[in-house]
Amino acid sequence: MSGKPVCIADFEKYAEKFLPKSVYDYYRSGADEQETLADNIAAFSRWKLYPRVLRDVSVMDLSTSVLGQKVSMPVCVAATAMQRMAHADGETATAKACHAIGTGMMLSSWATSSIEEVAEAAPSGLRWLQLYVYKDRELTRSLVRRAERAGYKGVFVTVDTPILGRRIDDVRNRFQLPPHLRLKNFSSELALSTRKDFGENSGLAVYVAETIDASLNWEDIKWLRELTSLPIVVKGILRADDAKEAVKIGVNGILVSNHGARQLDGVPATIDVLPEIVEAVEGRVEVFLDGGVRKGTDVLKALALGAKAVFIGRPVLWGLAYQGEEGAKEVLRVLKEEFRLAMALTGCHKVEEIGRSLLRRHEVLFSKM
Amino acid sequence: MSGKPVCIADFEKYAEKFLPKSVYDYYRSGADEQETLADNIAAFSRWKLYPRVLRDVSVMDLSTSVLGQKVSMPVCVAATAMQRMAHADGETATAKACHAIGTGMMLSSWATSSIEEVAEAAPSGLRWLQLYVYKDRELTRSLVRRAERAGYKGVFVTVDTPILGRRIDDVRNRFQLPPHLRLKNFSSELALSTRKDFGENSGLAVYVAETIDASLNWEDIKWLRELTSLPIVVKGILRADDAKEAVKIGVNGILVSNHGARQLDGVPATIDVLPEIVEAVEGRVEVFLDGGVRKGTDVLKALALGAKAVFIGRPVLWGLAYQGEEGAKEVLRVLKEEFRLAMALTGCHKVEEIGRSLLRRHEVLFSKM
Amino acid sequence: MSGKPVCIADFEKYAEKFLPKSVYDYYRSGADEQETLADNIAAFSRWKLYPRVLRDVSVMDLSTSVLGQKVSMPVCVAATAMQRMAHADGETATAKACHAIGTGMMLSSWATSSIEEVAEAAPSGLRWLQLYVYKDRELTRSLVRRAERAGYKGVFVTVDTPILGRRIDDVRNRFQLPPHLRLKNFSSELALSTRKDFGENSGLAVYVAETIDASLNWEDIKWLRELTSLPIVVKGILRADDAKEAVKIGVNGILVSNHGARQLDGVPATIDVLPEIVEAVEGRVEVFLDGGVRKGTDVLKALALGAKAVFIGRPVLWGLAYQGEEGAKEVLRVLKEEFRLAMALTGCHKVEEIGRSLLRRHEVLFSKM
Amino acid sequence: MSGKPVCIADFEKYAEKFLPKSVYDYYRSGADEQETLADNIAAFSRWKLYPRVLRDVSVMDLSTSVLGQKVSMPVCVAATAMQRMAHADGETATAKACHAIGTGMMLSSWATSSIEEVAEAAPSGLRWLQLYVYKDRELTRSLVRRAERAGYKGVFVTVDTPILGRRIDDVRNRFQLPPHLRLKNFSSELALSTRKDFGENSGLAVYVAETIDASLNWEDIKWLRELTSLPIVVKGILRADDAKEAVKIGVNGILVSNHGARQLDGVPATIDVLPEIVEAVEGRVEVFLDGGVRKGTDVLKALALGAKAVFIGRPVLWGLAYQGEEGAKEVLRVLKEEFRLAMALTGCHKVEEIGRSLLRRHEVLFSKM
Repeated sequence: MSGKPVCIADFEKYAEKFLPKSVYDYYRSGADEQETLADNIAAFSRWKLYPRVLRDVSVMDLSTSVLGQKVSMPVCVAATAMQRMAHADGETATAKACHAIGTGMMLSSWATSSIEEVAEAAPSGLRWLQLYVYKDRELTRSLVRRAERAGYKGVFVTVDTPILGRRIDDVRNRFQLPPHLRLKNFSSELALSTRKDFGENSGLAVYVAETIDASLNWEDIKWLRELTSLPIVVKGILRADDAKEAVKIGVNGILVSNHGARQLDGVPATIDVLPEIVEAVEGRVEVFLDGGVRKGTDVLKALALGAKAVFIGRPVLWGLAYQGEEGAKEVLRVLKEEFRLAMALTGCHKVEEIGRSLLRRHEVLFSKM
Repeated sequence: MSGKPVCIADFEKYAEKFLPKSVYDYYRSGADEQETLADNIAAFSRWKLYPRVLRDVSVMDLSTSVLGQKVSMPVCVAATAMQRMAHADGETATAKACHAIGTGMMLSSWATSSIEEVAEAAPSGLRWLQLYVYKDRELTRSLVRRAERAGYKGVFVTVDTPILGRRIDDVRNRFQLPPHLRLKNFSSELALSTRKDFGENSGLAVYVAETIDASLNWEDIKWLRELTSLPIVVKGILRADDAKEAVKIGVNGILVSNHGARQLDGVPATIDVLPEIVEAVEGRVEVFLDGGVRKGTDVLKALALGAKAVFIGRPVLWGLAYQGEEGAKEVLRVLKEEFRLAMALTGCHKVEEIGRSLLRRHEVLFSKM
Repeated sequence: MSGKPVCIADFEKYAEKFLPKSVYDYYRSGADEQETLADNIAAFSRWKLYPRVLRDVSVMDLSTSVLGQKVSMPVCVAATAMQRMAHADGETATAKACHAIGTGMMLSSWATSSIEEVAEAAPSGLRWLQLYVYKDRELTRSLVRRAERAGYKGVFVTVDTPILGRRIDDVRNRFQLPPHLRLKNFSSELALSTRKDFGENSGLAVYVAETIDASLNWEDIKWLRELTSLPIVVKGILRADDAKEAVKIGVNGILVSNHGARQLDGVPATIDVLPEIVEAVEGRVEVFLDGGVRKGTDVLKALALGAKAVFIGRPVLWGLAYQGEEGAKEVLRVLKEEFRLAMALTGCHKVEEIGRSLLRRHEVLFSKM
Repeated sequence: MSGKPVCIADFEKYAEKFLPKSVYDYYRSGADEQETLADNIAAFSRWKLYPRVLRDVSVMDLSTSVLGQKVSMPVCVAATAMQRMAHADGETATAKACHAIGTGMMLSSWATSSIEEVAEAAPSGLRWLQLYVYKDRELTRSLVRRAERAGYKGVFVTVDTPILGRRIDDVRNRFQLPPHLRLKNFSSELALSTRKDFGENSGLAVYVAETIDASLNWEDIKWLRELTSLPIVVKGILRADDAKEAVKIGVNGILVSNHGARQLDGVPATIDVLPEIVEAVEGRVEVFLDGGVRKGTDVLKALALGAKAVFIGRPVLWGLAYQGEEGAKEVLRVLKEEFRLAMALTGCHKVEEIGRSLLRRHEVLFSKM
């Protein structure tokens, strides 16, 4: 690549070249053999687009809403941990970029900027808190309260991480947060700052085993439901029965996610399970998707299969690595333009026109030996 | 490759070697990740031939008709833009080659030879105009009128390009028409000649955004239907419902096309959607196909699935690059001989005998790990 | 490879190294893009074996019969043209090898040894004549008469070659029979000896166009049926309807063959069409298969799907190239031992026990990205 | 790889580097073209996991029972021959490792440590005897009696090896047991010690042909059933009908196995046939699986499809090669931790909760060209 990045892959190439290896590995890796990591992306190619022609697409409207809030496009930013490893401004740069583009940002519990710092960076921006439920429930409750006070518009509670998935590169690298950074939402003992010894393991894996509650279950979601009037989204659902259970408990949304393929290798690509989850919830809550979204057509495919919006994780990290706030903005701009083109070329001039007839699943593309 | 080209791939290898990179890239590229570009070709391999034996094939007749005009074989030449980038004689060489072989040529609106020049090059040749509908409808009307006056036998109206697809190489190359060339059907302001500044984009993409009508819709096809008594073919249909709509409006043919995989990546290969479109139109109009035709068996497969004829684009460009008119002729000759062989070896001595029982779709060829 | 060949692939590696390139290319090549060439072999891998255990296999009988003649195993030798290009002894070496192993040999019309020479080489060996029907029917009749007189036990009439398929390497190499060799069944004008000029084409392709009858049809098979009381097998059937027609005319066998993938590229692998042809003939004639047989399990699979025996072509050529008669024998021995092992490990102690339940078709083997 | 192995593949890389080639080849090889060898592993990837979330997994229990004996996890060690080629301590190291981890070990008839030595190495460990039925039935009987006396808890009788499969590397290497080793369960004439001449073949193949009973059949299993009151498991079943027959005869378990892909190439992956065999036995005996188990999720998948436990072969050899007893233990530890993680991340806190709804078969993962 020379010159300005023209697609998301260009940003990643830049990041791979300029980030420290253990940081790039941490961001990039999936669990174990990384089959799901590859499948998250490949699966989009299995869904083929059947474009309609001769629709007037001279005026386009890409906007939609997420949990009742207007966004300029159905592409929001997913929580990714420790963004200051990618750029000194970290999560605050992301917040500004999202605000500039008119979309929402999900802040990780494990951010290297605090809930409050991110709110101050873009006070009128749209943001949600990604929540890990700590063994210490008072601590957990305080995270939610701080989000409420700081104007966050919802809580995405992670339900797929009772234990941290095994990312082989992080184990080999004995991954740790760089010494100048810490998890800013926590006091020092929970800040994952460099310390004694994580043994022969990923420092984060040890941290999760010590602090995060492996007993997390449906009762905890009910507790959370009682705790706050903010919209709650369960993040990490891959089965229709779990989706139904969540709806029954009264959550406001479901994020179909395999945690960026970082938890359990061998689970299906998110786009492949989206249809059955959309069907299961029968329109009673909003359904979102993350995992493998790298192109405008990916966004369109997810919407055609019933997602209200998609979330992107790694692409924003590559954008931050490229040029901080400007880089994150550029990533969002590229996806927006690609999505606009995908809509126009499938004959949709507004998001509501993106329907199920626009795609079919082809089992295989190969045919050469 | 040394010696004379013996298959279409040989012509492309020559062109790749001798054309300027930005020209070769422009001709070769597909949209975005180019998955459909590869699939257009690979898809033909998924359709397996089941040849009949012991038919007398000592006398062969490859001729058929297209929109009422006799052609020596069911292989015509598709519109490709700016053929003078491939060879100094450009579209006039193609016209002579088609006439010599006895088949028809579709001239691009964006030719580097004018409608009239091409007519003069081979006055008794068979030709059609590919039409882009400009925002300026008077201009559009005048293109049709000029084609009528110059003896063109039909209009292929492109319906899949309200906006130009994104071809990454062209963006990176900031593709422009070479300074000594212009779009000869237009006065200078619309001639795409080198000018001020197209920014960080493909010059052609900017041109399309400025001049081509993104509001194009079915009403415009009705307008065109009223405008001329020439046969009208809608070019760029991939769905059965759109095909039915076109038939209802009174067009004379449908060209199943994904624009050489240059508009929206992720759409199906044309040969894979051909059967449902043939079925949808119920024999009321002629159905044609372009996209990925590189071999005689490809032609036979498309006809067996119901196409009246196929159109080839890039192969003629490679022929022009190889040896101008002679090269284009040689490309057509190679395909004709391959098609003759494919007919003979499937037991068909005339085109009408090419039937549906000659092929089946095999999902996958792979079986080695 | 060093040391003695232990599998058929080893023989081919040897041949590739020691044969003149144009000879190796001629033997190895398939038509056009050679997709069917690869698929003939790959297709066997799609059929998975489901072995039975705990059958007594201490005593094994591999013998069977072909057209009423006993053979020591259901593996015979297919006609391949011009075997003296592989080894000075050519077809006479093959005849001796077959006799030694106890199996039958099909002699090509285009042999570089005559019908009579081959008979003399192994007088009590089992042999059949592969017949091309020449435009000159007297000549054709005389070939059959000579076979009858020389003790051949049947005629395999090729029905898939009204025109020679296009093998790109042969065109590029302008393949010709080496000057010291000729087609020994013919007088000099039809002997394909080096001559004037075949133009820019394969010499064999020109020869076929000039001498072989492209009008060949079912009436000619009836004529042949009348002509001789020898068993007649039609060679080159890939469709159930053609197989039924052949049975109706009164042939004695059907050889499911795509001519070693040398005629029309894109036809299915022979093992994949075998089941429907076996079903179509309802046990009224024997069904044989050639194409891609390289291993003992291939033989077993073909028999499990209903073939009475299989024919191998190229492997014998590699054996000849390796060590003449001894090499051909070794190839047959390797296959026999592999077949014996395949039978034993699927619980079959005689050929009749090889049944349909031993295999299933798996669409795809791949699962890694 | 540098540093401590973190997955089974790391142990194999070590072994490949440090073992003598002919030893590594012997352990690693599959039969013939080794398609099943690759498929055994690849097949696990075709089964996708559908994890349940929000189950309390803070307390985990991985234990289960095998043939009535408690094991700390459903992963036992399969019989592999001649383990002293991997490490001087061979089978006694494996026995100690299994005992330390709390799981069972199947000892090969062809061990380089005797039945009694292995018992002494870990007297209170759980062990079973893998039995080859020799032509000499008295010898066979004595092996069973010795196992009974030495406290073995069952007999796994191999039923898929009337003849040894052909492993091409072993033929090329003319594989022999190194001179300082012998099969310790036998007197010298049957000890496979280096001797005269095995010809141009694998020494083991010759040994099997001379000593093992190719007439082995169901009557012999009945004889064995009468012979001992130990639990009997038939090892090497791939078909439902054979499984039913075994149940009828009164065996106690079925080991779905293709002998590590070392007997007949082209048979299905064991995980792919497991479901139909589980269905066939209707819960009347325990069903086990070996073949391709390399990861914790593989174990979980086999259990979800109905296996009571899995057996691992080669991984333990790589562990022995790495560090003898400690290496074998480490291999078992890695798999145990991976299995624990797989259970937790699919929402199972005990083995009984691993159910069929946790996975589905996806035909293909590929989608890029």
